[in-house]
Amino acid sequence: MLTQQPVAASLLERFRSVRQATMDFASRLTPEDMMVQSCAEASPVKWHLAHTSWFFETFVLSDFVAQYKPFNPDFRWLFNSYYKALGEMPAKKLRASFSRPPLDEILAYRQHVDAGIAQLLEQTPEDEAMRRIVLGLEHEYQHLELAVTDVKNAFFTNPLHPAYRLESPTEHEERISPPLEWLSYTPEVAGLAPGIVEIGVTPDPAALTSFAFDNETPRHKVYLEPFRLASRLVTCAEYLAFMEDSGYERPELWLSEGWDTMRDQGWTAPMYWRRDAEAKSGWSVFTLSGFRDLAELSETPVCHLSYFEADAFARWSGHRLPTEFEWEYVAARCHPAGNLLESGYLHPATASADLGQPQQLFGDVWEWTASPYTGYPGYKPLPGALGEYNGKFMSSQMILRGGSCATPQTHIRATYRNFFQPSIRWQFSGLRLAQDGPG
Amino acid sequence: MLTQQPVAASLLERFRSVRQATMDFASRLTPEDMMVQSCAEASPVKWHLAHTSWFFETFVLSDFVAQYKPFNPDFRWLFNSYYKALGEMPAKKLRASFSRPPLDEILAYRQHVDAGIAQLLEQTPEDEAMRRIVLGLEHEYQHLELAVTDVKNAFFTNPLHPAYRLESPTEHEERISPPLEWLSYTPEVAGLAPGIVEIGVTPDPAALTSFAFDNETPRHKVYLEPFRLASRLVTCAEYLAFMEDSGYERPELWLSEGWDTMRDQGWTAPMYWRRDAEAKSGWSVFTLSGFRDLAELSETPVCHLSYFEADAFARWSGHRLPTEFEWEYVAARCHPAGNLLESGYLHPATASADLGQPQQLFGDVWEWTASPYTGYPGYKPLPGALGEYNGKFMSSQMILRGGSCATPQTHIRATYRNFFQPSIRWQFSGLRLAQDGPG
Amino acid sequence: MLTQQPVAASLLERFRSVRQATMDFASRLTPEDMMVQSCAEASPVKWHLAHTSWFFETFVLSDFVAQYKPFNPDFRWLFNSYYKALGEMPAKKLRASFSRPPLDEILAYRQHVDAGIAQLLEQTPEDEAMRRIVLGLEHEYQHLELAVTDVKNAFFTNPLHPAYRLESPTEHEERISPPLEWLSYTPEVAGLAPGIVEIGVTPDPAALTSFAFDNETPRHKVYLEPFRLASRLVTCAEYLAFMEDSGYERPELWLSEGWDTMRDQGWTAPMYWRRDAEAKSGWSVFTLSGFRDLAELSETPVCHLSYFEADAFARWSGHRLPTEFEWEYVAARCHPAGNLLESGYLHPATASADLGQPQQLFGDVWEWTASPYTGYPGYKPLPGALGEYNGKFMSSQMILRGGSCATPQTHIRATYRNFFQPSIRWQFSGLRLAQDGPG
Amino acid sequence: MLTQQPVAASLLERFRSVRQATMDFASRLTPEDMMVQSCAEASPVKWHLAHTSWFFETFVLSDFVAQYKPFNPDFRWLFNSYYKALGEMPAKKLRASFSRPPLDEILAYRQHVDAGIAQLLEQTPEDEAMRRIVLGLEHEYQHLELAVTDVKNAFFTNPLHPAYRLESPTEHEERISPPLEWLSYTPEVAGLAPGIVEIGVTPDPAALTSFAFDNETPRHKVYLEPFRLASRLVTCAEYLAFMEDSGYERPELWLSEGWDTMRDQGWTAPMYWRRDAEAKSGWSVFTLSGFRDLAELSETPVCHLSYFEADAFARWSGHRLPTEFEWEYVAARCHPAGNLLESGYLHPATASADLGQPQQLFGDVWEWTASPYTGYPGYKPLPGALGEYNGKFMSSQMILRGGSCATPQTHIRATYRNFFQPSIRWQFSGLRLAQDGPG
Ligand SMILES: [Fe+3]
Ligand SMILES: [Fe+3]
Ligand SMILES: [Fe+3]
Ligand SMILES: [Fe+3]
Repeated sequence: MLTQQPVAASLLERFRSVRQATMDFASRLTPEDMMVQSCAEASPVKWHLAHTSWFFETFVLSDFVAQYKPFNPDFRWLFNSYYKALGEMPAKKLRASFSRPPLDEILAYRQHVDAGIAQLLEQTPEDEAMRRIVLGLEHEYQHLELAVTDVKNAFFTNPLHPAYRLESPTEHEERISPPLEWLSYTPEVAGLAPGIVEIGVTPDPAALTSFAFDNETPRHKVYLEPFRLASRLVTCAEYLAFMEDSGYERPELWLSEGWDTMRDQGWTAPMYWRRDAEAKSGWSVFTLSGFRDLAELSETPVCHLSYFEADAFARWSGHRLPTEFEWEYVAARCHPAGNLLESGYLHPATASADLGQPQQLFGDVWEWTASPYTGYPGYKPLPGALGEYNGKFMSSQMILRGGSCATPQTHIRATYRNFFQPSIRWQFSGLRLAQDGPG
Repeated sequence: MLTQQPVAASLLERFRSVRQATMDFASRLTPEDMMVQSCAEASPVKWHLAHTSWFFETFVLSDFVAQYKPFNPDFRWLFNSYYKALGEMPAKKLRASFSRPPLDEILAYRQHVDAGIAQLLEQTPEDEAMRRIVLGLEHEYQHLELAVTDVKNAFFTNPLHPAYRLESPTEHEERISPPLEWLSYTPEVAGLAPGIVEIGVTPDPAALTSFAFDNETPRHKVYLEPFRLASRLVTCAEYLAFMEDSGYERPELWLSEGWDTMRDQGWTAPMYWRRDAEAKSGWSVFTLSGFRDLAELSETPVCHLSYFEADAFARWSGHRLPTEFEWEYVAARCHPAGNLLESGYLHPATASADLGQPQQLFGDVWEWTASPYTGYPGYKPLPGALGEYNGKFMSSQMILRGGSCATPQTHIRATYRNFFQPSIRWQFSGLRLAQDGPG
Repeated sequence: MLTQQPVAASLLERFRSVRQATMDFASRLTPEDMMVQSCAEASPVKWHLAHTSWFFETFVLSDFVAQYKPFNPDFRWLFNSYYKALGEMPAKKLRASFSRPPLDEILAYRQHVDAGIAQLLEQTPEDEAMRRIVLGLEHEYQHLELAVTDVKNAFFTNPLHPAYRLESPTEHEERISPPLEWLSYTPEVAGLAPGIVEIGVTPDPAALTSFAFDNETPRHKVYLEPFRLASRLVTCAEYLAFMEDSGYERPELWLSEGWDTMRDQGWTAPMYWRRDAEAKSGWSVFTLSGFRDLAELSETPVCHLSYFEADAFARWSGHRLPTEFEWEYVAARCHPAGNLLESGYLHPATASADLGQPQQLFGDVWEWTASPYTGYPGYKPLPGALGEYNGKFMSSQMILRGGSCATPQTHIRATYRNFFQPSIRWQFSGLRLAQDGPG
Repeated sequence: MLTQQPVAASLLERFRSVRQATMDFASRLTPEDMMVQSCAEASPVKWHLAHTSWFFETFVLSDFVAQYKPFNPDFRWLFNSYYKALGEMPAKKLRASFSRPPLDEILAYRQHVDAGIAQLLEQTPEDEAMRRIVLGLEHEYQHLELAVTDVKNAFFTNPLHPAYRLESPTEHEERISPPLEWLSYTPEVAGLAPGIVEIGVTPDPAALTSFAFDNETPRHKVYLEPFRLASRLVTCAEYLAFMEDSGYERPELWLSEGWDTMRDQGWTAPMYWRRDAEAKSGWSVFTLSGFRDLAELSETPVCHLSYFEADAFARWSGHRLPTEFEWEYVAARCHPAGNLLESGYLHPATASADLGQPQQLFGDVWEWTASPYTGYPGYKPLPGALGEYNGKFMSSQMILRGGSCATPQTHIRATYRNFFQPSIRWQFSGLRLAQDGPG
């Protein structure tokens, strides 16, 4: 398949770049840092390094390299995350016990896998192998993003609250958020009846490098009424107004499950905020650069909210969260750029002053939508064990859209569907408001 | 408002009939039976008797009777279920401690409330009062259904497993279920673009007695692709085949949350099934008439399934659950009749042999759908405390449709949306299969 | 065995009186009241009525009446509490589901058992049968006491807080507690070396009606140093001083397990105390006659304390709890009388003004001692299933001595050992101080 | 105080040796290994290294070095274990999040403290300083022992089950355990009445280097009846006979709390045993040298038992556990030597063939006694924060005696009282049998 050779070559280049991105993030961490697993959602960074290599070994090298010899046969089950079709695996909470294999061995594992993939790509493998490598790179990017959020949690949990790095995430930022505009949309797509839009993507089997997860497929029709979308994300200052208006004390603002969760957990502010008598604002906020006075961050998007808090804020404001379809309809018409991982901020940034168009759709914070996570009409999981990648999580979770400041640039797109339980806060998750009707 | 007088009169008749239905169900129970609260979902029957009266007192008599004197001021908070806007209430799990007030006092409370409502209706109250009475009757019917399922659980939990009544629920039944047919639907509604259907209902404020809960509103457009729906419910025999094909042992059939729940809870069969070496089938099934050999019930619809089990069964069968919109599209075109509470079976019954049309849409078992519980586009909760009735539960729950053998006849309709967490099994809940595409 | 006839006759008289005492207590309760099980430690009164009859049926009638026909064969396992040697039994928490058998049937069961025991005693049964009947009566008394404390908890848990009876438990009381005296003891027993005392009892197999539980046996020697014992119990006023001196805020006063338990449970006062802005003292205390202002009870013994609170109070006061041996050494030299169940107070009462001798050793409140519950040297449990009565609980529990206002007069004695986990508060449990050394 | 100079010099020598022992144990571990905290009882080794230094800094350097400058002021609270009098401390479960400070900094902390103590001792400090140093060394030894058991648990929890070292712990051992002899004791102490013995120790304030924990004080009289003690520990082979005689299935053998714990935890064998079809014996046992066939270890003392299992075994065997007083009476008359940490086995070893005298009293395994942990008559905790060292744990724990194969030689003595909750198994804990009466 000679025509595929340039595809394989460019894929190898991308492979090297993605794998390097993971190592770049890890380079500021010590082997001890990479052992910490500070909450049930998180994994140690060392585990992320190993598991992403395991993914390539299991789904590419083992299947497409003749007589492939695994780096270490135990790793086959040791670094399986949740693919039950491949057999038993250690309980997630045990990952913090993996002092052995040592980091050095994991790094050697990565090099072994890197060499294997490089060799495979140099020989222009069959299409399915390349599709799996593409999937593996998106998988690697997901774990890179998770590693960022897991390290943030680890350093917050450490009673000394060390910083991942010392520079301020805010020093490059404009300080004043533009006023919120309501952008009006009356969905219309050429060739379709009024109100009918197309959502998701049906992959072209021939286009090896255009990628979508199975949960974004197939492209299908949805009926949408006119709606309005906020031009930018909700800021910390706006969220503080909700808090000061007794937002966490008024049951009428909350879903029943949200109220119970908030009370059980003792939430009175977003995750990583703590009262601080020495801060000008009375609050300090933990970032990957350590604690900051909320006063410095008040114009930046609020983040580390649960769905329940995002939903309560929206109700308090008199508006609502957008559906994932409304969001995608708008985002599909915008350039997928923003404050993503490559900006290096590792924190959401103040919106720019550009008016009349949606800001911050991509990057900054994952935006909770009003849509529960379900399979699209006609959804089919990938065959085999890879079918467990997304499909088996389609219950009791909500859709988030748009990526965050920890999401790699080339990983995000308008059709991308992230999903978490509504009580989850350790991701960079925030919100954008919506309302019914034409402007 | 003279023209309303016949409305009030017929409403009074209906009021008496609904209130009597509750008392009829309770008439086979002792005061001790009415104290039992055997699982977290259930309430004692005595509490149901009081709480339904509380609803009329709180939302009708207190608001629409001048200088209304409450039966007992403590009841205002004591029998509040979950309306936080009305103030504090006892924790649900405490309801089993209410030996006082004694049953006699609760019955006097009911009579007091009945007399108050009768007097109000005899004076033809304003429209909103009548609307609230209608709501109160639907509320009473919901609690009557809950009382049926709660008594079933209470008698199952009692180690002696007493029967609510001694007759068999199956003795009036045909024994052979008809073969499953796939009925094809290509959604088309006159005046709308192909595929666009209308779902839900927008209430006519003038029609006092036509009722819908706020979560069924407003009527709105949804786009549907062609689909096929099974002509009848899944039977116990069919479910047993899933079990015997290691259905509870194969993770690939289950949602991740479902697998974990099933393992944690130790489920290996529907609720109320137990292995019984003395039963011909090897299984006994608890009913409101006591334990029955599964052999007697194998052609009846399987019930007391969680969403997770219904979903796993559907995946095993190669099909899927219908969405609530597909279900409603079909049901809206059928007569809302079936094996409902009034049949007196108190158990789902074998489908009839009528071919070519959907069977068992109404009654028998609540049908789990693939749709999470959300607000319809433009949804607005009722004003005030009544806004807590439905809206605050719109997270982490799935929609069930069609009513069960414990649902009163006049309570169910095609647009009715029931909802429970996906792990819930104490309701009469089962499933009907669906698949994509035209026939 | 002609000489035993008078023994049997007097035993029958005692049997009738004890069984009647249980019914007398229950006579103020409704069948609904007897269904409530409001905490993990408690059982419904109906269950107590049945279980005490089960004890006589199982250990007397079944073993000593030829061809005894059980009242209901299911009761054999249904009303077993914890005797594993007799087979499976329902989980304790299920006892609140026993609406069936109805109370009437339980009362018929009691009569059936009463008639059986009467018939047996009229025929002067063998000694072991009489020993078992004596044991059954002590067992009945234990459950009568438990029923009192369980009803108190049930009525407290009920949000209406009904009273078991309306009279005040305090109206017969002196109001001023005498000053605390320190009574000095230098243990000496004739015929034994200085400091050696004898503790417990070795039963005389010939004396059928002298009774001791197996955990009081055998009589054995213990070495005691001189000690001083407080002349009376600690009062509510004294305990309030501990609270007001930040007793619940100072970790140095608490055992580590006690501190953690107190914090986890949110204790800031004895059980049944609640802050009450309308009470003169700022506190209301729940009694079997309803809530009382603490001001009325301040001179009465503090009760419903955990061991941890008793121990913390003692440390705060600069003293300590007595060991069970010190307590028994003193009590064995006193008349076993006091404010016991027969006084009818159902609440601890103010000490009398008699000086120079120990007050309140028997009755009022169970006194936490510093002694963990272990078997005495040479301890042997009863043979067979009855061996489970006491012995299997000899871990992680502390000894309490002296009985309470809910203990029947003839049930208590100086050698009696009660035992509970140190976190337990639902019994009438309080404390008396001790200190080292001669006076 | 010139005469103290040689004491200080020899104390410095001992200080260096103890501190070095900790480092020697850690020398086989990687920084990653030292991060693991694999069960609630355990701490990371890095934490042990820091906390033992903290102890010297807090209780010696800060109090006895003029103008002492702490190594890092944060360490004062960061490495506090449970001394509430010193202020707040991190929750124990957070210790696995301490990737920072890095191991290098902890090692520098140790050196800083070591230098400080050396300097202090070179200047012959006041007596109390030396007493505190002695206490700190015993504390260090306790944590060294804990580190051994924590590493064993960590490596067992790691799914790869690495070995701490590769040599077999059994290769130096005799293979055949001598028969069990019953050694008779009739307690008699010169100058005391028959049966009265003296237990514990009253420290001589002038003897700086003779050490006892406060819970071993004061020396006091106890009355003991004649008893017999097994000459050696219970072996794996003997314990296996209990297991094969359905020991874990027979409730009559267990304390009630033990039965419930065993069932809840799913215990069917000692900790670290697992069924292994490939082992000759059918069982593999995890040791610090990895998994071993039980066949190799059958004559060695059984270990990693809870009190409940030790107690059930004793009941099954027809005997009982000794009290701590019986044990001490015998041990005080023996030389305190055995298979302790310095043997290097890190596993209990087969008894020697010496007959007629007690074997294995010191080392091998901690021996569960029948005695709950209480304060001795007249017990007074140390003043100040050090009073929290032992006293506050005197509830719901049982006494173990004699040290284990992980206990340093100079740390153990006949009066030493170890204590754990009866459900604890991660220590090297086993048992020796006893029975009543003269031989
Ligand atoms: Fe992954
Ligand atoms: Fe309700
Ligand atoms: Fe009992
Ligand atoms: Fe320590």
